Amino acid sequence: MNFDKEFTSAILIIGNEILSGRTVDKNTSFIAKWLGNLGIGVEEVRIIADKEDAIIDSINLLRKKYQYVFTTGGIGPTHDDITAESIAKAFGKKYEYNKEAFKILEKYYAKSEFNEGRKKMAKMPEGANLIYNELGSAPAFYIENVFVLPGIPSYVELMIPQLKNVIVHGKKIISRTCDAKVRESSIAIDLSLIQNKYKNTDIGSYPYSNKDGFGTMIVSRSFYKDEIENCVEEIEQLIKKYS
Amino acid sequence: MNFDKEFTSAILIIGNEILSGRTVDKNTSFIAKWLGNLGIGVEEVRIIADKEDAIIDSINLLRKKYQYVFTTGGIGPTHDDITAESIAKAFGKKYEYNKEAFKILEKYYAKSEFNEGRKKMAKMPEGANLIYNELGSAPAFYIENVFVLPGIPSYVELMIPQLKNVIVHGKKIISRTCDAKVRESSIAIDLSLIQNKYKNTDIGSYPYSNKDGFGTMIVSRSFYKDEIENCVEEIEQLIKKYS
Repeated sequence: MNFDKEFTSAILIIGNEILSGRTVDKNTSFIAKWLGNLGIGVEEVRIIADKEDAIIDSINLLRKKYQYVFTTGGIGPTHDDITAESIAKAFGKKYEYNKEAFKILEKYYAKSEFNEGRKKMAKMPEGANLIYNELGSAPAFYIENVFVLPGIPSYVELMIPQLKNVIVHGKKIISRTCDAKVRESSIAIDLSLIQNKYKNTDIGSYPYSNKDGFGTMIVSRSFYKDEIENCVEEIEQLIKKYS
Repeated sequence: MNFDKEFTSAILIIGNEILSGRTVDKNTSFIAKWLGNLGIGVEEVRIIADKEDAIIDSINLLRKKYQYVFTTGGIGPTHDDITAESIAKAFGKKYEYNKEAFKILEKYYAKSEFNEGRKKMAKMPEGANLIYNELGSAPAFYIENVFVLPGIPSYVELMIPQLKNVIVHGKKIISRTCDAKVRESSIAIDLSLIQNKYKNTDIGSYPYSNKDGFGTMIVSRSFYKDEIENCVEEIEQLIKKYS
């Protein structure tokens, strides 16, 4: 699947808890599917620690290489939340209170509860645009082509739909899945012949096993409806031959 | 958590199905926990497509930067399984049948079933060492400091324990988790004061919500038993203060 640069992206997952294995990252899958539906391809994902140098270096590399960059994690109230400040440094911008974010948080918390940690969640790079949290608490933000989201998956899912109109949509990717009740090694060679024939379709082959035995999910993806339909027809004939 | 270079690693997840969001990667979490128990830190994870250039570039960068590199995915029988060949190219080695792997596969499959796709699973970089699959089918391999594992999580879990004696173990990381039934933004400032006091302990703060309300998992990690015990005691006092 080759996307024009205009429709490419990268995801940067920031968090020690993912690198230590304590937490399984679910944001990549959600964000990638959402982007895929807009015709934007995810070209790479990086998972890094809550370390300033790692964040700055990764942001400055990825924001130049791809059209869009999405980060998750590290924008909460605690000492280990250093994403917003590091991104300000990556862009060479001031790290300061965003007035609108400050007002939102001021309204959300009782006066006696609006402590320094909570105020910190309003600090962002100068010129950042807010991504609102409809539950009323801390907003996320974007600056130029870098979209800075929280780490909690339910917040990501809540907030990301707002970005639909900010992103230039690409061609819709068509995806078709065939479930072959055969081992992938049985059909590997025939499948590669089909792949060779349909150059504008990516055929992926994913083996699985369950109580009924072995099987293979064959996923075809393409921008071209006619081509993918012909390709899937040949895959279905191949499956019949081996069933 | 700063590991000496001798005890660092990176994980490279290879597979279009992860980048498209179709599959949630579970291998990172399993491998990282396993490495953590051996005292090896995972410094970064990259997820890339089944594309030769991306694999070669990532391998050549990561194998020089870190002591160990673990890859998953792309060593099956189909056309989209290009990891082994790409890694041979990254090392400038021949991509050829590994005699022992060939024998294992020859024994596993009936003669009439040992087709080209299945034979392909015995092709590896010249000089590769096998990582056996005790179910009897295709082995994985390692070459120098790069460990090349399959994409299916149950196979990774089955195969990785063999590597315990191949890897030079680091200092064991001690980890303690405190469950605070308070919002993390309530305790953020006090927690940062504790972090400032214990320089050789990483304190991570992970908010959650469930039917009983909001809470925060506070995870402390250190190489130093005395320090972490003192640190955890202060965290527990902090939690009491806010409960």
